[in-house]
Amino acid sequence: MTQQYRITLPPFKRGMHLITHFIEKELKNLPACGLVNIFLCHTSAGLMLNENADPSVMKDMHRIFDEMVPENQSWYTHRSEGSDDMPAHAKSALCGHSLSIPIVNGHLGLGIWQGICLCEFRNHASGRTIVLTVIS
Amino acid sequence: MTQQYRITLPPFKRGMHLITHFIEKELKNLPACGLVNIFLCHTSAGLMLNENADPSVMKDMHRIFDEMVPENQSWYTHRSEGSDDMPAHAKSALCGHSLSIPIVNGHLGLGIWQGICLCEFRNHASGRTIVLTVIS
Amino acid sequence: MTQQYRITLPPFKRGMHLITHFIEKELKNLPACGLVNIFLCHTSAGLMLNENADPSVMKDMHRIFDEMVPENQSWYTHRSEGSDDMPAHAKSALCGHSLSIPIVNGHLGLGIWQGICLCEFRNHASGRTIVLTVIS
Repeated sequence: MTQQYRITLPPFKRGMHLITHFIEKELKNLPACGLVNIFLCHTSAGLMLNENADPSVMKDMHRIFDEMVPENQSWYTHRSEGSDDMPAHAKSALCGHSLSIPIVNGHLGLGIWQGICLCEFRNHASGRTIVLTVIS
Repeated sequence: MTQQYRITLPPFKRGMHLITHFIEKELKNLPACGLVNIFLCHTSAGLMLNENADPSVMKDMHRIFDEMVPENQSWYTHRSEGSDDMPAHAKSALCGHSLSIPIVNGHLGLGIWQGICLCEFRNHASGRTIVLTVIS
Repeated sequence: MTQQYRITLPPFKRGMHLITHFIEKELKNLPACGLVNIFLCHTSAGLMLNENADPSVMKDMHRIFDEMVPENQSWYTHRSEGSDDMPAHAKSALCGHSLSIPIVNGHLGLGIWQGICLCEFRNHASGRTIVLTVIS
């Protein structure tokens, strides 16, 4: 009864990106009721739910993360992979790497304003890998 | 074997509110062992676990979120729904929108000091909707 | 089909600690496909995924949390258990108390750089209790 899918997203530039449609495209045979776990296999990007309607929310979220974890702090010791790297690890820990979303009537039970967002915190990342696990 | 319940909480004022009793009231027929997913269908409130004993923790958590994501930053672009709105989206992303809690011996397997908290980040919100999914 | 294990970690000093090996040691009979929920039964420590290779990431994460939630703010009202206590509750809410990780081919489906970290935010904590729930 457990389904599992591995997908690789296209590369995204640094910032917040709605990816609900990429996820839903993979989940065509959902059971009527259950749970979907969306798991990102990386430590310098994250997953979050946020407003899916006004792109200004994505824009402001990007800067809010930048303000919370500034680059180039003199006391960072993890510096070898660029100034965006250690902040990316921290931001990804703050938003987290997995989402668990209920399946309601055979569909993702998101609220009407909720979108699934990839938070890309690196300047030059490759396509990110996600594992979808459907439990019912 | 999957159970699912949708509940609407009463409206809460801005701040942190213990809602463990609302959740437990819905979960009267839990299996002996499994997992409960508590999912909040909104993007300007959040769910967290925190100390259930001393109300000062709830009070300080409220201000800590306010300090981390200040209102009225000059560079916010998402401003049309009030000064509390964009910070609410950010705070909700930081604490998250779902909790997955083990079922141990037929009850929520929370630690002795752990309470389930609704983090209401809007000044004037309606009752929030939660979906409970029980997997065993 | 649901498995559950309760483990108590050894006491760790304040800071970030990779505990992937403690978790994997308990999970010797995983199904081929499913989900593992790792749940920490405390409110002054947290669980996160982060880079498992360079110890400097753990060191910097510790300070990043300290910078985000400073000790000894004059407006804290929850003060009776020491200056590290209220910040510990806040930091634990930020990183969260549970991780849900897919089981892929009978093993934890972590990304190659992902490690499971205990974030110990108290100065003098006892061993922390974790509940592992395996769903398939």
